[in-house]
Amino acid sequence: MKPITLQNYAEGHWVAGAGGLAELRSAVNGDVVALTSSQGLDFGAMLRFAREHGGPALRKLTFHQRALMLKALAEALTARKDELYELSYSTGATKGDSWIDIDGGIGTFAVYQGKGRRELPNDTILIDGAVEALSRNGTFQGLHVYTSLQGVAVHINAFNFPVWGMLEKLAPTFLAGVPAIVKPASATSYLTEAAVRIMLEANILPKGALQLIVGATGDLFEHLTTQDVVSFTGSASTAAKLRTHPVITRESVRFVAEQDSLNASVLGPDASPDSPEFDLFIKEVVREMTVKAGQKCTAIRRGLVPAKLLDAAQDALKARLEKITVGDPRDEATKMGALVSTSQRNDVRDKIKQIAADGAIVYGDPNASPFNEKGAFISPVLLRCDKPWDARAVHDVEAFGPVSTLMPYQDGADAIALANRGKGSLVMSVFTHDTDFAGDVVHSSGSFHGRIAFIDRDSAKESTGHGSPMPHMTHGGPGRAGGGEEMGGIRGVKHYMQRTALQGHPRVLAAITNRYIAGMPVQEASEHPFRRKFHDLPIGYQLKTKSREITLDDIEHFAHFTGDTFYAHMDEAAAAANPLFGGRVAHGYLILAFAAGLFVDPDPGPVLANYGLDNLRFVKPVKPGEAIQVALTVKDKTLRKPDQGEVRWDVLVTNREGETVAAYDLLTMNAA
Amino acid sequence: MKPITLQNYAEGHWVAGAGGLAELRSAVNGDVVALTSSQGLDFGAMLRFAREHGGPALRKLTFHQRALMLKALAEALTARKDELYELSYSTGATKGDSWIDIDGGIGTFAVYQGKGRRELPNDTILIDGAVEALSRNGTFQGLHVYTSLQGVAVHINAFNFPVWGMLEKLAPTFLAGVPAIVKPASATSYLTEAAVRIMLEANILPKGALQLIVGATGDLFEHLTTQDVVSFTGSASTAAKLRTHPVITRESVRFVAEQDSLNASVLGPDASPDSPEFDLFIKEVVREMTVKAGQKCTAIRRGLVPAKLLDAAQDALKARLEKITVGDPRDEATKMGALVSTSQRNDVRDKIKQIAADGAIVYGDPNASPFNEKGAFISPVLLRCDKPWDARAVHDVEAFGPVSTLMPYQDGADAIALANRGKGSLVMSVFTHDTDFAGDVVHSSGSFHGRIAFIDRDSAKESTGHGSPMPHMTHGGPGRAGGGEEMGGIRGVKHYMQRTALQGHPRVLAAITNRYIAGMPVQEASEHPFRRKFHDLPIGYQLKTKSREITLDDIEHFAHFTGDTFYAHMDEAAAAANPLFGGRVAHGYLILAFAAGLFVDPDPGPVLANYGLDNLRFVKPVKPGEAIQVALTVKDKTLRKPDQGEVRWDVLVTNREGETVAAYDLLTMNAA
Repeated sequence: MKPITLQNYAEGHWVAGAGGLAELRSAVNGDVVALTSSQGLDFGAMLRFAREHGGPALRKLTFHQRALMLKALAEALTARKDELYELSYSTGATKGDSWIDIDGGIGTFAVYQGKGRRELPNDTILIDGAVEALSRNGTFQGLHVYTSLQGVAVHINAFNFPVWGMLEKLAPTFLAGVPAIVKPASATSYLTEAAVRIMLEANILPKGALQLIVGATGDLFEHLTTQDVVSFTGSASTAAKLRTHPVITRESVRFVAEQDSLNASVLGPDASPDSPEFDLFIKEVVREMTVKAGQKCTAIRRGLVPAKLLDAAQDALKARLEKITVGDPRDEATKMGALVSTSQRNDVRDKIKQIAADGAIVYGDPNASPFNEKGAFISPVLLRCDKPWDARAVHDVEAFGPVSTLMPYQDGADAIALANRGKGSLVMSVFTHDTDFAGDVVHSSGSFHGRIAFIDRDSAKESTGHGSPMPHMTHGGPGRAGGGEEMGGIRGVKHYMQRTALQGHPRVLAAITNRYIAGMPVQEASEHPFRRKFHDLPIGYQLKTKSREITLDDIEHFAHFTGDTFYAHMDEAAAAANPLFGGRVAHGYLILAFAAGLFVDPDPGPVLANYGLDNLRFVKPVKPGEAIQVALTVKDKTLRKPDQGEVRWDVLVTNREGETVAAYDLLTMNAA
Repeated sequence: MKPITLQNYAEGHWVAGAGGLAELRSAVNGDVVALTSSQGLDFGAMLRFAREHGGPALRKLTFHQRALMLKALAEALTARKDELYELSYSTGATKGDSWIDIDGGIGTFAVYQGKGRRELPNDTILIDGAVEALSRNGTFQGLHVYTSLQGVAVHINAFNFPVWGMLEKLAPTFLAGVPAIVKPASATSYLTEAAVRIMLEANILPKGALQLIVGATGDLFEHLTTQDVVSFTGSASTAAKLRTHPVITRESVRFVAEQDSLNASVLGPDASPDSPEFDLFIKEVVREMTVKAGQKCTAIRRGLVPAKLLDAAQDALKARLEKITVGDPRDEATKMGALVSTSQRNDVRDKIKQIAADGAIVYGDPNASPFNEKGAFISPVLLRCDKPWDARAVHDVEAFGPVSTLMPYQDGADAIALANRGKGSLVMSVFTHDTDFAGDVVHSSGSFHGRIAFIDRDSAKESTGHGSPMPHMTHGGPGRAGGGEEMGGIRGVKHYMQRTALQGHPRVLAAITNRYIAGMPVQEASEHPFRRKFHDLPIGYQLKTKSREITLDDIEHFAHFTGDTFYAHMDEAAAAANPLFGGRVAHGYLILAFAAGLFVDPDPGPVLANYGLDNLRFVKPVKPGEAIQVALTVKDKTLRKPDQGEVRWDVLVTNREGETVAAYDLLTMNAA
């Protein structure tokens, strides 16, 4: 097969490097599969292109529109994913490995498009938290918002997930309205390049939203500004170098690092050789060692087991590892493919040597070269370290391959201390059926880990496992793991936006955020709001109803009709003794029902249904003979379909004295 | 007055430096007021002391208990604040300046204690966001939590707010359960030391929660780990040096920087010399120039006005500045005190020279030394720069004193671009009555500023102003401002905690977080839950009611009783045409009322009141003849007083087929 010459995608054009082509070799047989270079690119111009075209175009779209873009991109990738699977074999990946990378990556887009439409407004500004009262009379209030950064997301990705590694960062970036420049690790950049091609050929993204560098980043960092974000995945040493770049420091450029870490998996103190958790632990350690040939930043590097189970665990792991056939990734019988490159294999062998000094290799020959001498194959290697507190390398050195070390702990506290000895990790898994131990782990170890997966007999069947970062959950970890955070649903979107504290009159804050804020001037309804279609309802449009007395008869009638004969409504003496009421009061649900009776306009019209209610508080009891009146105000609107939208109404129920007795948000679905 | 020899508070003891005492001089008359040194301290031991004593003790307390600690500290400081005011004069601060520092600092504790008790659980773990469904059958779910960092918060503070600067960082730190080591800027450290003394003498904080370094930090940074946080306020150059310290990089130590920035204030394009906003702008610029003699990181350094108003604004500012009397801070007639030191004054003079090269000084003589030759007094200095796009120093050089530059802009877009030219700021203020311009500002400029204050005729009276960071709102900004964030209510607490993604069976997640999660095993109620006191209600305790049919008569009756005769309940033909219902359905409020009728136990007992309802969704319509049944489950509990607590109930209303028709959280107040 003739090597492909990879192209960069810069300033809207595919362009090959102007020389200095590097050879990328197949992990399977050492053949050159691609040639690559980024020489001659004008990196400063690429950043400007993204800032001048991609950013403004993306920022014009609402979150929902950007989410639909992700949906279309996922469809485009799915339609042509066979091309990606084909290329992926050369990286040493089996079909199963490729599924994690390719379908996993596309799945991330799918989750983000759904979350974007469900959890974000159909707007370009995201409100963060509640309105803050900064003044007595409410003429000066506070509100936090997120707006899109006006710069570029520079994604520097690792070799192990050439597709997922790109897509998991692009999803939140695009949703945030920020253009990206992707720089994949060279070794597997041919696969990333193919995925970028598919996305660009689908013609979904605006000009400048996505660019690609297949090669070195040259002087790119010199041109970064405070509005840019660098999201780096890779080694701690490269991260440290980039993080302290003078421009990063001078401009306070956001720098997110996700580094490999010495993730632990703990078999709980409650386990015995016969407990389901023992088996689950063994299976997971072997899976994490062998999937992607152990080249996962989340892989289990340290297996912690109760001291009394150390031998049993070792035997069970060995028995299972013996079934791992290493070979041609295209062969369906193959359980484990190759490392990405022979140089990577050399590194793994070197690291194994260091770790072995703390203990012993109990399975596998690190120096064997299975299947194809010219490929980057290696055997899974299990080490054992009997004195983990005397050891250093097991906690500090990562062999980025099918390598794990088994070690004993004395009790739960010792297990937690050993887990924390990794100095910060992306993920820890805990195989226990004891919720007390689970609680101890979170309290004593939570701050050392970005993610903790608890797996037991009840959850194992549906568990997504130790090593799989889910788009819903944050991915990243403190300390050695880099201190960064990615994904986590909408949390990840905020990494590409700036939070700003706004202060001002509610009229101003409401206009900026396009949402009703109490204290702003309202627009008195000239016709009943239920007669108006979605688009004809302005924010702040307000109906004030007439008032209605709630009589003792009403209360008694409601009680007997509904069956809610709570003493505070029915028995004056008992109610008088209640510290909150001091006498009979109307049912909260009666207030709600009468309020609806006051504001509902009965005839068919744009309001299709009341589908919910939020943040209801009964602020002041209503006693028999008191009257209620309702102010119904358009608070917020979200178009959901071309012809339907949600309307959020502010409902304020007051008594004759004008005091609030109940306040809530009412949700209706309205025709548009 | 004999100089005080300041003491460090290290490892539980007050200790003077072991030599190398530095002289701290009065800003007013140059007398030595204090001697200080941190020589001889064992900085590594201080960190260990905090980790071994302060951290564990604080982490044992719940958020509410920590909040009460803040309340008590605020009271202790208030009781002795006169001592602080007295010392504060020597820093050059007037009484008004000191009020911002001292009462403002205590106020921050007050806000945090309230927010801590209202907005945080009475627990040690903080849940972040919703449960994430990670599996089809719900046996594996996700949930994010925050746990306290197990390290130390190192607070390196600036000289300008020796009290507030410490307290605004301590409030969220202590609330997060993290011990602190405070290192104030030397120049005003005598005031910080006095405040620390008051707090410690009140005997409120556990051992190791608070330590103080009055002097250099020696090798402190060498001993930091991933669980520590450095929160730095000061110059960009020092921030850059600390941020790139090899230990910070190696351990991914969180580093929060709040640097000075070239904050802008914009007089909107809608202003005229007669508009209220014109006057408000003039007043605010002068106030920001002269309060604390302009030594505020939030001060207005750049005043942007419509070109046509440049002369008018200059005249108005000059007229107002002429009324500013510089003099003895103890004299109540004094409008502006001194800079902190003569060396600081030299720096300000040097910076004014640089800025003046871009324009001209139009008010004040930077080289005058008013009031007392030996003090650090300086005149307010107003500069004018007619061609801001040709200028550099006005946007890049900060004179940290009573110095501001007035410049013209051509239109709204130009104003925004000039504001952004500051490359990231802590705060921008905008004086406009035009909400369209306000919206443009947020959309086009939001990501450059940590805070934007809109001030107009409606809000001015209650406005907290351009320069005052409020504890409710985030303080910090992108780019030149350091890229950090402080306060912002509970947001600031999270800076001292680690977010961790938890995954597992709902039984496990529920046990860890002490909260009901759907899918966990429930405990069938052996007696009606309304008969149980707060402390006797276990999480997951569940009542299943009998079922009740909702008849057409019920619907008609409810409609006429409440007045809610919406057609979907009353008119079969019209309801059939509704796209969501396809026939008559029961009122949502009828379902709620009947549900209460099913689960309420009428007799007096521990349940005092139903005070609210959250997240109600009507999931499926109920048609006449269908029946409903309720599952009422204890979801969460928060003790509010010794004898009362809130109970949050999960309410699930189902039909005969077991399908959910409505789901919500019910809130009751229960006797404990």
